[in-house]
Amino acid sequence: MTKLKAKRMRHFVSLEQYDNQEIIEMIESAIEFKRQAKFPTYTENYAINCFFEQSTRTHKSFEMAERKMGMQVLDFQPAMSSVKKGESLYDTVLTLQAIGVDIVVIRHSEEAYYTKLIESDSIKCSIINGGDGTGQHPSQSLLDLMTIYEEYGSFENLEVAISGDLTHSRVAKSNMQILKRLGAKLYFTGPQEWYEPSFEEYGTFTTIDKLIDQVDVMMLLRVQHERHQETDLRFSKNTYLQKYGITFERESRMKESAIIMHPAPVNRGVEIEDSLVECERSRIVRQMENGVYARIAIIDSVLKHR
Amino acid sequence: MTKLKAKRMRHFVSLEQYDNQEIIEMIESAIEFKRQAKFPTYTENYAINCFFEQSTRTHKSFEMAERKMGMQVLDFQPAMSSVKKGESLYDTVLTLQAIGVDIVVIRHSEEAYYTKLIESDSIKCSIINGGDGTGQHPSQSLLDLMTIYEEYGSFENLEVAISGDLTHSRVAKSNMQILKRLGAKLYFTGPQEWYEPSFEEYGTFTTIDKLIDQVDVMMLLRVQHERHQETDLRFSKNTYLQKYGITFERESRMKESAIIMHPAPVNRGVEIEDSLVECERSRIVRQMENGVYARIAIIDSVLKHR
Amino acid sequence: MTKLKAKRMRHFVSLEQYDNQEIIEMIESAIEFKRQAKFPTYTENYAINCFFEQSTRTHKSFEMAERKMGMQVLDFQPAMSSVKKGESLYDTVLTLQAIGVDIVVIRHSEEAYYTKLIESDSIKCSIINGGDGTGQHPSQSLLDLMTIYEEYGSFENLEVAISGDLTHSRVAKSNMQILKRLGAKLYFTGPQEWYEPSFEEYGTFTTIDKLIDQVDVMMLLRVQHERHQETDLRFSKNTYLQKYGITFERESRMKESAIIMHPAPVNRGVEIEDSLVECERSRIVRQMENGVYARIAIIDSVLKHR
Repeated sequence: MTKLKAKRMRHFVSLEQYDNQEIIEMIESAIEFKRQAKFPTYTENYAINCFFEQSTRTHKSFEMAERKMGMQVLDFQPAMSSVKKGESLYDTVLTLQAIGVDIVVIRHSEEAYYTKLIESDSIKCSIINGGDGTGQHPSQSLLDLMTIYEEYGSFENLEVAISGDLTHSRVAKSNMQILKRLGAKLYFTGPQEWYEPSFEEYGTFTTIDKLIDQVDVMMLLRVQHERHQETDLRFSKNTYLQKYGITFERESRMKESAIIMHPAPVNRGVEIEDSLVECERSRIVRQMENGVYARIAIIDSVLKHR
Repeated sequence: MTKLKAKRMRHFVSLEQYDNQEIIEMIESAIEFKRQAKFPTYTENYAINCFFEQSTRTHKSFEMAERKMGMQVLDFQPAMSSVKKGESLYDTVLTLQAIGVDIVVIRHSEEAYYTKLIESDSIKCSIINGGDGTGQHPSQSLLDLMTIYEEYGSFENLEVAISGDLTHSRVAKSNMQILKRLGAKLYFTGPQEWYEPSFEEYGTFTTIDKLIDQVDVMMLLRVQHERHQETDLRFSKNTYLQKYGITFERESRMKESAIIMHPAPVNRGVEIEDSLVECERSRIVRQMENGVYARIAIIDSVLKHR
Repeated sequence: MTKLKAKRMRHFVSLEQYDNQEIIEMIESAIEFKRQAKFPTYTENYAINCFFEQSTRTHKSFEMAERKMGMQVLDFQPAMSSVKKGESLYDTVLTLQAIGVDIVVIRHSEEAYYTKLIESDSIKCSIINGGDGTGQHPSQSLLDLMTIYEEYGSFENLEVAISGDLTHSRVAKSNMQILKRLGAKLYFTGPQEWYEPSFEEYGTFTTIDKLIDQVDVMMLLRVQHERHQETDLRFSKNTYLQKYGITFERESRMKESAIIMHPAPVNRGVEIEDSLVECERSRIVRQMENGVYARIAIIDSVLKHR
């Protein structure tokens, strides 16, 4: 392993830094942790979760992972921190490291906020990216991959559709890159305006009705209502469901073995019919469950590379 | 035990679900935990405290109870959670359960917010009600009952007065129901407009001066200034104390053995003379102390019924 | 030890309560804890950190100290507490004590907020001052002293300059008093309007250029931009650095052994040239590191005096 690679592996900021084999290894570790309900323990290590954006799943899932590994967990309230006095993210991390923190999980609205941190020679603690703006959300990607792999045991020739707000989704972009190189066949669907020509490299854009009976995995993305005009009727609750969402009718046309995924929070009745959220082929709750094990694998990996 | 009852006992949302004997058992457990300073331990269990309304006593008291039982405690900041993106309480609890939480303590402004949660077949973690709107506040009721029982060893024929904002108090309503069925004799006092005819079923309304020398327990309620017009002089600090509160003169007329209770926070100089808050017959500080043991008994009970 | 002194030693609100020998003992304890990476353990004790003002360093450093000592740590969110309903600090502490907290660390904007608490006979838990308005910040003072002592082994005849916003700095005032009585020779520098004639008692005011090549310790204070008019050009970024700050030129004129200190957060490019923050003679990161050990010594001291 080169020195640069070794330095990179101390952090977890993007799945792109890992080759296919490394990704499969992390997934298999996560599945094994889940199966055995036994976890690597790091009782001498300290983690802090710095979430500058709202989050329930990712934030609490990292906290749970850290606790299951026996780590000490500090919490960080941006509004009550010196960030409010103008302290930079770099100086905040330098401070946390100085007081003895080993792992800093960060969600921040700035895309690639982590670049300065991981390139600095002063920062020796591990940075774990819990989501950066419309950039990456690699722990979500890993748990998505884990959920698919747990189901099918391979990505080779799997037909996967990603549906919805592809432009603004930090998950979609990293998922399409990784799924493609792991051998899956990709399709995109949803409103045309949320599709970008650059995605062609990874898969084909089409309508949900052409896809629904052939895909193995239907990955829904959240409609981020906060980003759209209320008057934009195309994205009104019922219109969206009828045009782009998983209705009862569409669900009934899916292959018997096919699964439905969604990173949540789900807009019930928008991306999917309310009562289908917990239907048999839905893996939405399992994704949240798997998130804890995927994050244990991530933390274990960065701590092993220190 | 019927299946429905068993399912109910997995949660703690209202004292009404317990019969007299079960309530006395919980009180006696709490007193025993306090006496021995030894607690049931649940080191493999995870609790999260979701307080959507401001609280010091109830929130920190639950946290202390959980920690004394060796549980892992996660904290939840509503303002930094996905609730802000519109995620429902049901989906929030489903998420927390998926990541491995066993107990979710919730305070929420919506009355009976818990109904959907405890009726769902998906929710298998335990819901503990830390207060719902102007509805119930059963852990406060239990600690109040514990404090009285610790003093008198029985509720039979005990004369108990509840004074103040009966209409808006979540504690008052649940206390009057339970005290009555445990055998206490109830009186109500305070401003007439805060009394509702429906309370007649439980006790008699009269003035504090007619009551003060006969009651065994004087339970004061907090004047919720945030709910009243500032111009409403009836509830101005001094007027309230003189007309309805515990002045030095009234305190001196109480029976030697009688006690004063208040769920706190106390408006010093309103419901009670400032320097009487910590007087000899005041059990206000002891109520806070007992709250931890009452909550240990509650958590122990729900975990035993899983 | 008098009873009054003993009562005082149960709290840590100001360094003034300690004589020179006691301060040196605390510093030496802290240095020893750091050297051995072994800490006194208090697994049966509960601490809560009540920060009513924004803080990263002090808040998280106390939390780290408590965790390294094996204590249980509760966190307190002012905005979600009953303080928002008007509950006083006294009643909040009384509550926290009632539920079983042993140590309450408080940062509050009100100067000497702690007076009522430490004088009360009801408050038996330990109050640790994490900063009171423009008053004291004794744990920061102790870590500053520790950092100097670690460097020089003594304060006798050490030449120390304090530079910047002397008027508003809670650290500066307590540092000047203690350093003087420990034998250091003090100088003040920075904008004239931030100097008060009452400081003459402790040292001499002069310009930074007259001091820079003679001092052993250069203690910089943060420019609190939030307190000044934006239009006040004297305190604009570059003007301040050129007139009063540590430029490359000034740094090069310092004695070989001299060190630079700053309580942080640093305004990079204002009090000191950006890239000098982590220069060889800078002890800014070490101060943050030492803060944890200084606070372990503080907590150990108050718990021993209970």
